[in-house]
Amino acid sequence: MRIALLGGTGDIGEGLALRFAHDTDHEILIGSRDPEKARNAVEGYEAILEERDVEASIKGFTNEMAADRADVAVLSVPPYYAGDTVDAVAEKLDEDTILVTPAVGMKGDEDGMHYHPPSAGSVTELVASRAPDEVPVVGAFHNLAAGKLSNLDREIDLDTLVVGEGAAKETVTSLASEIDGLRVLDAGPLANAAEVESITPLVINIARHNEELHDVGVKFQ
Amino acid sequence: MRIALLGGTGDIGEGLALRFAHDTDHEILIGSRDPEKARNAVEGYEAILEERDVEASIKGFTNEMAADRADVAVLSVPPYYAGDTVDAVAEKLDEDTILVTPAVGMKGDEDGMHYHPPSAGSVTELVASRAPDEVPVVGAFHNLAAGKLSNLDREIDLDTLVVGEGAAKETVTSLASEIDGLRVLDAGPLANAAEVESITPLVINIARHNEELHDVGVKFQ
Ligand SMILES: C[C@@H](OP(=O)(O)OC[C@@H](O)[C@@H](O)[C@@H](O)Cn1c2nc(=O)[nH]c(=O)c-2cc2ccc(O)cc21)C(=O)N[C@@H](CCC(=O)N[C@@H](CCC(=O)O)C(=O)O)C(=O)O
Ligand SMILES: C[C@@H](OP(=O)(O)OC[C@@H](O)[C@@H](O)[C@@H](O)Cn1c2nc(=O)[nH]c(=O)c-2cc2ccc(O)cc21)C(=O)N[C@@H](CCC(=O)N[C@@H](CCC(=O)O)C(=O)O)C(=O)O
Ligand SMILES: NC(=O)c1ccc[n+]([C@@H]2O[C@H](COP(=O)([O-])OP(=O)(O)OC[C@H]3O[C@@H](n4cnc5c(N)ncnc54)[C@H](OP(=O)(O)O)[C@@H]3O)[C@@H](O)[C@H]2O)c1
Ligand SMILES: NC(=O)c1ccc[n+]([C@@H]2O[C@H](COP(=O)([O-])OP(=O)(O)OC[C@H]3O[C@@H](n4cnc5c(N)ncnc54)[C@H](OP(=O)(O)O)[C@@H]3O)[C@@H](O)[C@H]2O)c1
Repeated sequence: MRIALLGGTGDIGEGLALRFAHDTDHEILIGSRDPEKARNAVEGYEAILEERDVEASIKGFTNEMAADRADVAVLSVPPYYAGDTVDAVAEKLDEDTILVTPAVGMKGDEDGMHYHPPSAGSVTELVASRAPDEVPVVGAFHNLAAGKLSNLDREIDLDTLVVGEGAAKETVTSLASEIDGLRVLDAGPLANAAEVESITPLVINIARHNEELHDVGVKFQ
Repeated sequence: MRIALLGGTGDIGEGLALRFAHDTDHEILIGSRDPEKARNAVEGYEAILEERDVEASIKGFTNEMAADRADVAVLSVPPYYAGDTVDAVAEKLDEDTILVTPAVGMKGDEDGMHYHPPSAGSVTELVASRAPDEVPVVGAFHNLAAGKLSNLDREIDLDTLVVGEGAAKETVTSLASEIDGLRVLDAGPLANAAEVESITPLVINIARHNEELHDVGVKFQ
């Protein structure tokens, strides 16, 4: 399968690229607004993987070209640019490209981080409303810290929640399950995304107030 | 210490009463609008504990009398009556009684449960605004399923999050930590309560969509 990470030059893009490259045989496509930046990022990721004798297929592209080639495209850009990025690649998407969003809208103040959803109810639903009608949208990976994913020395024993419907949700569930130590749980349809996204400011608050917890994730039991 | 469970005749009241009685030496006071109902509940809880040869100190009272005697009073009533119940016991509270709220405002539709906070931002903050100024308010226990607490055969390996400030938060942290298998994490001040309460509709959605998970709770790692 071809997995595109749009804005894959950033933190969560790096984390997902390294884990998918390390744990699976899928092709990874790093997208960027600037293809040169994408190729530089790929060099960095390959260097990390080579140290572990992992030969992976990772290539750098513009976001549009990455989306065009992808079976699954992960929108790894800041929440406020998620809509713009969907618009930018919309022509390259179709019913066979699953658009995955890990984006969370938050706002910080002196007390901590707070959930700050758009009027669509959640960033996941905003992305669904901006994507062409035929493109299946799935929410996933919201509650995984980029810092933990990117450090391949750190073992993962975490859950990720998926929201969405039908075959697209099943594909993303099975793909995400290929990351070692990641269990995928179904949180229902897109309408349930706000509660999934809300964990992110919470885990950031928990990391701030509890010394032993850093880059914290969640497990349901 | 004397722990009052206001509305302790209900589901979460039973769960907390049984766990505190089983795992600690504190005195448990069950409060109800109807003292006869409280005493009946106590008989039921004692019967469950006797089967395990646990002799505990549990007594039934009106909510007012339970609050009057308590060092810590847990507001174990439905969220929409939390404010009324604070008003009903307000005269019996003072700076030496910690008021603890586990209440969560939710709304269900065909998609699942959704977080539905009052205009105060969270039920926890609503309770704080209704309590007399000198009474310390702490949020805790929101994300523990009553069904799991009440069944003493089920081992707990879960986190609970506390929000609040100062000595009151420390007291509740140390008290809750006495429940076997429960780890207490600090989620910051009361202003961070909404993100804590939001996990509750999420875990209910997860229980609905994932067969092996029932009465699910959460662990941060
Ligand atoms: C905590 C980290 O700060 P940061 O790099 O700015 O990153 C802050 C957060 O964005 C980062 O923790 C995100 O992963 C938080 N986060 C999310 N952040 C988001 O913005 N959006 C998200 O959706 C999101 C999800 C998420 C899920 C789980 C989780 O645990 C965290 C999540 C840090 O270590 N900061 C240090 C310094 C940061 C730094 O530049 N360090 C240097 C090294 C400094 C040194 O080692 O001396 C470096 O990393 O190269 C500090 O604040 O003192
Ligand atoms: C899931 C349970 O339904 P229920 O007893 O109505 O309870 C539904 C929920 O209120 C209950 O699951 C709550 O614990 C959900 N819940 C909260 N519910 C809330 O209303 N507020 C909360 O703040 C809250 C927090 C919470 C935290 C964690 C968590 O995992 C769950 C949480 C159930 O088993 N239902 C059965 C039947 C219920 C029943 O009456 N069963 C009989 C026996 C039936 C038999 O065994 O045949 C019985 O228990 O005696 C069903 O729907 O088919
Ligand atoms: N950080 C985490 O731990 C974490 C965890 C889970 C989910 N998330 C979510 O993942 C998303 C990305 O987070 P991140 O921390 O990886 O962000 P980031 O590193 O700040 O940015 C990711 C990439 O977004 C692109 N970008 C920046 N501004 C843009 C704009 N105006 N328009 C289009 N693209 C732009 C950049 O790529 P180019 O310059 O190459 O185009 C950048 O490298 C966010 O929505 C976040 O909520 C983050
Ligand atoms: N159920 C869970 O798993 C769970 C888990 C965590 C937190 N919580 C929270 O804990 C609180 C209680 O939940 P629960 O499931 O235990 O509720 P519950 O069983 O439905 O009710 C608890 C008690 O509240 C009292 N009560 C009912 N209506 C009232 C009213 N109008 N005014 C004052 N008191 C009233 C009743 O006691 P009397 O008739 O004896 O007065 C009842 O036994 C809720 O806020 C909930 O969000 C629940």
